[in-house]
Amino acid sequence: MTENFDAVDIIRTKRDKGTLTAEQIDWTIDAYTRGVIADEQMSALNMAILLNGMDRAEISRWTTAMIASGERMDFSSLGKATADKHSTGGVGDKITLPLAPLVAVFGVAVPQLSGRGLGHTGGTLDKLESIPGWRADLSNDELMAQLSDVGAVICAAGAGLAPADKKLYALRDVTGTVEAIPLIASSIMSKKIAEGTGALVLDVKVGSGAFMKDEDSARELAETMVALGQDAGVNTVALLTNMATPLGLTAGNAIEVEEAVEVLAGGGPEDVVELTVRLADEMLQAAGVSGADPAAALKDGRAMDVWNAMITAQGGDPKAKLPEAKHSDVVYAPADGVLLELDALSVGVAAWRLGAGRARKEHPVQAGAGVRLHAKPGAVVRAGEPLMTLLTDTPDKFDRAREALAEAVLIAPEGDRPAQQLIIDRIS
Amino acid sequence: MTENFDAVDIIRTKRDKGTLTAEQIDWTIDAYTRGVIADEQMSALNMAILLNGMDRAEISRWTTAMIASGERMDFSSLGKATADKHSTGGVGDKITLPLAPLVAVFGVAVPQLSGRGLGHTGGTLDKLESIPGWRADLSNDELMAQLSDVGAVICAAGAGLAPADKKLYALRDVTGTVEAIPLIASSIMSKKIAEGTGALVLDVKVGSGAFMKDEDSARELAETMVALGQDAGVNTVALLTNMATPLGLTAGNAIEVEEAVEVLAGGGPEDVVELTVRLADEMLQAAGVSGADPAAALKDGRAMDVWNAMITAQGGDPKAKLPEAKHSDVVYAPADGVLLELDALSVGVAAWRLGAGRARKEHPVQAGAGVRLHAKPGAVVRAGEPLMTLLTDTPDKFDRAREALAEAVLIAPEGDRPAQQLIIDRIS
Repeated sequence: MTENFDAVDIIRTKRDKGTLTAEQIDWTIDAYTRGVIADEQMSALNMAILLNGMDRAEISRWTTAMIASGERMDFSSLGKATADKHSTGGVGDKITLPLAPLVAVFGVAVPQLSGRGLGHTGGTLDKLESIPGWRADLSNDELMAQLSDVGAVICAAGAGLAPADKKLYALRDVTGTVEAIPLIASSIMSKKIAEGTGALVLDVKVGSGAFMKDEDSARELAETMVALGQDAGVNTVALLTNMATPLGLTAGNAIEVEEAVEVLAGGGPEDVVELTVRLADEMLQAAGVSGADPAAALKDGRAMDVWNAMITAQGGDPKAKLPEAKHSDVVYAPADGVLLELDALSVGVAAWRLGAGRARKEHPVQAGAGVRLHAKPGAVVRAGEPLMTLLTDTPDKFDRAREALAEAVLIAPEGDRPAQQLIIDRIS
Repeated sequence: MTENFDAVDIIRTKRDKGTLTAEQIDWTIDAYTRGVIADEQMSALNMAILLNGMDRAEISRWTTAMIASGERMDFSSLGKATADKHSTGGVGDKITLPLAPLVAVFGVAVPQLSGRGLGHTGGTLDKLESIPGWRADLSNDELMAQLSDVGAVICAAGAGLAPADKKLYALRDVTGTVEAIPLIASSIMSKKIAEGTGALVLDVKVGSGAFMKDEDSARELAETMVALGQDAGVNTVALLTNMATPLGLTAGNAIEVEEAVEVLAGGGPEDVVELTVRLADEMLQAAGVSGADPAAALKDGRAMDVWNAMITAQGGDPKAKLPEAKHSDVVYAPADGVLLELDALSVGVAAWRLGAGRARKEHPVQAGAGVRLHAKPGAVVRAGEPLMTLLTDTPDKFDRAREALAEAVLIAPEGDRPAQQLIIDRIS
């Protein structure tokens, strides 16, 4: 591509609230990937985009250009429908673990390319890596074979998908430009579209533990992503779901796998089951499967069979004992009453500080660390009763974890009820 | 300084329209100078400042921090008042050349630390370097000696003054963040305050050929800079002056020196004389000199005497023949009438393309190149009469220079008069 454009002109256009042309956007992404646009120029442009926005056509082109920066997968040779789910990230969000095998029960292939966690939201690969022997990295051939044989794969996204996004995300992370809806939407959707899934269900979290704290922003992000998916021919729907309090009773790695297995065994916390079944319904519907009963497939062991096959195919032992933290510490209820709030962000930060998450992407995580909840909002508690157990291999972290939890709990007189609706809206 | 701050937090604060604390600003400038804050972080912060602004206290602290990044000059040992002028840059703006010796006539030392040109506005040092032998770089000792003996110096600013500003300006130039009033004001004023002048007169240009195209922005910049100067104990005033049309009849290097010498000889174009005398009045007044008559000092040769001494002291030969361009090309009036407009930006860009200016700071300039005007707005012209002469050593540039001039000229029926007031306002 010839250098027909000038980075400073493009920055100025967006700075002055102008609209970038398709050609300018194509050149920007390509030139940045090639190193012709410098990091300091791209970060100024990102800040201008964050503050001045992009219109629908600009976001769509930006996404297409990021997809074009790398390879694109193609599952058409499988001969079956494909569906994928993406969550914008929350605390205790282990839904992918039971969901992928559950959807595969009904003959839809689930190529769930996932990431590791950063900050207070856990990463699906980190959780699965607590299973002895399990490996996240598969070749494209292994991925195709497992989709064909088992029907579900949860693995690391290859470096070849949307390399422009990888470079851009690393830049945004250190320049205060992560929180731009056009950039978030195009980052997520470029990877998901390049992945080649036929149907996509987005779980856009709202609340303290989510990336989007308020419903308006979450809705804008969801609508933007749904439109991007549909523009690219991917059957896309989004659910807005509550992340004011953690999902389920665990936030960590091994302890979340344990809870996912409970759900696959027909039990588990009510909210995790509800969201898993609802997302399975959405994925199956988007993939063109009607009349499926995912709740039954959790109860009768079919989903567990796929889970066992999926973990085994990736070298893991589904029957192995999971790692446990060496140290624990209990947080007690400070008063009698109804647990009105149990703040997701506080619990997420506590789990992170205990070692379940990482501050930098090269850091390891502790498999056994995290927070186990003994009560959820709506429960009646008595002063001195255990509310949470903190788990870590590094007990010097308990103090900082407790600091994070200082404002996490609100106990109200009995009779009050938390107003928490798990599924807030559906956007299609 | 310990790293008590995080660059991303600081970027986010300004991104979200917050106010930076004094400690955050001190750390930002120091950490950027030391390379702890990366270019891509600073450019994101600059864009956030450009779009969200800084309040008076933030700008003042930002300026102080930039001054603290380097050395500060001190002229108190001279035993006389000092005054300096700074122009925000225009087309044909050779005012510094006659002004510095003119003010020195009245016993006020003028340490005029100047820069080279970039883009369509010329640089004072580029103009003076067309004088055979003249050199811009002086040691601090040479500067002090010349201020003491001659009274006026025009030379290059040393690298030790506000090094943070130098690094920041180079970054702003490639990241579309030059046009931020807080950053412009702090950039100019950090250098001028570090220079150690006692009085400062700012010539803030308004119009097509200026950095500030509209009066509101120019006024905001002027008010901001005057306040910064006064906060730092420098007696500062600003004039808002018109840059809709070039100053004088020349835009280039040697041809501007020639015009400056005409003014020093008691002649020269009316607008150049008017602005030179007015700025001299302001500088003398700010330096505490009353009853001076600068117009007389141009007429009676006293200013010329200081000019000759000043050029000689810096190795130049004031009597030497100045370089002339090898090629010329004439632009003719297209119609009869009154020359209503002669656009400064167009003339500046034409002069730049002819070789008088540079596109990158490492490029040389042509001493003889530029544009000579044969008429100014208000003049009655006849079709076919010469309006301008284009001068260059590289005649292949004539076409591109003529393109820049395509819309430069507006001729109206006789009776119309251009509404151009040279000095728009005074801000103190």
